[in-house]
Amino acid sequence: MAEIQGADDKIELLRGLRQNRFFQQQSVPDEVLDNILEVARWTGSAGNTQPWEFVVIRDSQKLRQLGMLAPNTRWLAAGAPAGIILVMHENEYKDALAVSYDEGRLTERIMLAAAAQGLGAALAWFSGDSPTQVKQILGIPAEGMVRTVIAMGYPGEPPAMMAGPGGVAGRGTPQIGRKPLSETVHNEKY
Amino acid sequence: MAEIQGADDKIELLRGLRQNRFFQQQSVPDEVLDNILEVARWTGSAGNTQPWEFVVIRDSQKLRQLGMLAPNTRWLAAGAPAGIILVMHENEYKDALAVSYDEGRLTERIMLAAAAQGLGAALAWFSGDSPTQVKQILGIPAEGMVRTVIAMGYPGEPPAMMAGPGGVAGRGTPQIGRKPLSETVHNEKY
Repeated sequence: MAEIQGADDKIELLRGLRQNRFFQQQSVPDEVLDNILEVARWTGSAGNTQPWEFVVIRDSQKLRQLGMLAPNTRWLAAGAPAGIILVMHENEYKDALAVSYDEGRLTERIMLAAAAQGLGAALAWFSGDSPTQVKQILGIPAEGMVRTVIAMGYPGEPPAMMAGPGGVAGRGTPQIGRKPLSETVHNEKY
Repeated sequence: MAEIQGADDKIELLRGLRQNRFFQQQSVPDEVLDNILEVARWTGSAGNTQPWEFVVIRDSQKLRQLGMLAPNTRWLAAGAPAGIILVMHENEYKDALAVSYDEGRLTERIMLAAAAQGLGAALAWFSGDSPTQVKQILGIPAEGMVRTVIAMGYPGEPPAMMAGPGGVAGRGTPQIGRKPLSETVHNEKY
């Protein structure tokens, strides 16, 4: 990494963001969560349509309950002190692909705002029929599109019962490597 | 905004990111661009599939040429010293929606890495038939999915000929407001 004056800690935040799926029980202070939501609010979206709403959950039991609805989210059963469920809205100007892109931008901004304040965060998608169940549990109108949950809290260690290939967290433990730039960067032409 | 020790400048970066469509002619130093690509490389993606490649363009004339291919990108005609075209790949594990989400995450990381180093950046989607033309011009294989261009450089002012509703930049001048959190945040339940 090249050193650019005044930018190093910011670049390190951006470069260093990883999924963190295990948390201390300590709750997330209101002002930390407020900053995350404020960052989320200012996320850019095509046409500035801001096609999102947030359901903020601080009830760890409810997050466990939601997590158990689908394999992808089962790691939430290990406990997270806070989570944000994204509710996205297609509209006449924006199809599902465009909304998905905005959802990705929004997710990244939320994850980074958590990390900037010393939290760990992890995202998952509710798969299969679980979005319908999530909507029922949380009272989200049927027309809202629910897919992404972002859990957050101060980083902790996986409990022994969760670790290993047979544990709840075994499936989908984040892979950490990345392709080198030599495999993905083309200069001026492909 | 609440003050969280050591986090303020990072939160401000995250909260303050906006589209910047006009640039000084000054070129972007290699090390600045290297940092942006390094941040991009470490972006998270579902299943760590990293379904992306980057075409980095430092030829301002080529960026002008590409920009003129579609209305959405015509503001590139004002000149940008560098741009990154994202080439995305669907695969057996990931459909177009999932790739679009990853593309959004990637875009946000690139825009933020530019802003962290004092650059302005703006994204646009190539619309209509222009992705096919972009692929031809840049030699990108047909199976690659091309949609997003991110232009970047040191922020400048719009030239007089570009300003105003009749100018090249008139269409799609970014809107700057955002909904208040009271309209988008729900606590515990919708």
